[in-house]
Amino acid sequence: MEDAIARARSLVDAELGPVGPIDRPRALRDAASLAGRIDHTLLGAAATSSEIVRVCHEAREHAFASVCVNSRWVPLVAAELAGSGVLTCSVVGFPLGAMASQAKADETALAVAGGADEIDMVISVGDLKEGNLHGVHDDIRAVVIAAQGRPVKVIIETCLLDDVQKAVACEIAARAGAAYVKTSTGMSTGGATAADVALMRAVVGDDLGVKASGGIRTTQDAVAMIAAGADRIGASASIAIASGELPADGASAGGY
Amino acid sequence: MEDAIARARSLVDAELGPVGPIDRPRALRDAASLAGRIDHTLLGAAATSSEIVRVCHEAREHAFASVCVNSRWVPLVAAELAGSGVLTCSVVGFPLGAMASQAKADETALAVAGGADEIDMVISVGDLKEGNLHGVHDDIRAVVIAAQGRPVKVIIETCLLDDVQKAVACEIAARAGAAYVKTSTGMSTGGATAADVALMRAVVGDDLGVKASGGIRTTQDAVAMIAAGADRIGASASIAIASGELPADGASAGGY
Repeated sequence: MEDAIARARSLVDAELGPVGPIDRPRALRDAASLAGRIDHTLLGAAATSSEIVRVCHEAREHAFASVCVNSRWVPLVAAELAGSGVLTCSVVGFPLGAMASQAKADETALAVAGGADEIDMVISVGDLKEGNLHGVHDDIRAVVIAAQGRPVKVIIETCLLDDVQKAVACEIAARAGAAYVKTSTGMSTGGATAADVALMRAVVGDDLGVKASGGIRTTQDAVAMIAAGADRIGASASIAIASGELPADGASAGGY
Repeated sequence: MEDAIARARSLVDAELGPVGPIDRPRALRDAASLAGRIDHTLLGAAATSSEIVRVCHEAREHAFASVCVNSRWVPLVAAELAGSGVLTCSVVGFPLGAMASQAKADETALAVAGGADEIDMVISVGDLKEGNLHGVHDDIRAVVIAAQGRPVKVIIETCLLDDVQKAVACEIAARAGAAYVKTSTGMSTGGATAADVALMRAVVGDDLGVKASGGIRTTQDAVAMIAAGADRIGASASIAIASGELPADGASAGGY
């Protein structure tokens, strides 16, 4: 893992040059409850407004961190969650990440105007795989700027990447002003693993949050991700997950 | 099938009111070769620019109808295909269709500015399923307007719909000025079937094109879709498909 990270840092430094101090919105890092770390998620193509409203009610009742939806549903979710303390989270460029950067920025601006508090965007995986690191950076940066201070979570789609590529993606996300790196869309060939979360945490250190998503269905799954270094969990089985408890040392099991 | 269509027409008429004459770009309906009916497609998240360029070279060599890509790659494809007669086709709101309508329109406008000749958009499946037919219509209409006269293919994602919903989607797409209806993204739970193509053709009659996509891998698959009423085929296995021939009556086997 250390080798992959060192190699990634040297690739990014060579390509993007030295980096100065970076302003970024703060990640949520210290929720006391398991529920408070969960982005309650409904992203399927066939989701209806009544299903979206149900998810919002569940999120209010269980005090989840956010409700995470496609951008079409952002105004509805923001209205349903008003005054609850539960955040409205919109995915952008989802799930392929292969939209034009300007289209991702436009979708972000619309989501913010509609009431989104957080943006979960997908990187341009193809650019990363061919080593176009400027392309990856500028794509993320366009979304960060369009988000106007709202935290951006950068989905790197770990299942499509090798360890060096994962580390490069996290390093670039940090430089571009992301608040979090996030493992997966949940719609590709695989989801979050503890090993990937640990790698991502090792790259971003204490500066960014790490969100684990994709295939997390039980309390045990979620606790394993938190132990590996995750601050946030993306899930649809959120009620089942939150019915369990964090271990007494759960908040710091990964050293964070 | 006739029952489903009659029920769909009555639902759409009741909800959207009477419809006057509709201007729409002409669909390609009369390509002589099988290759000339194929949209050569590369839509995976991890596609690289060199893979996109390879697909463009293949499309020029085999005289496919178009190259169909995510919007990030439109300027590259348009440059690679310049002067070839092969069209540049961009997907929009792909593959979930759950982006904000304005975001789909923005992505469409960017694709057109980047050189797209055709737009393949995904409907708001959730709105269709809950009977918000105005929502479905206005979403398509926003893309048709943003496409500024370029043909729009409306992906209805047949695998998520019952027959009445499929017919409603086609009827609405026709009213909204689409040039084609299209079966599938190829990224959901199923692809094109001959029965769905026949249903869609029966709804749109001779006014629109029908594009079959998702799971079409052989000449036999493609010929079956054309026999059922398809004008266009979306595929990645295009070279294998085009290595076979249309039957002598293939162009009119479905009566179109």
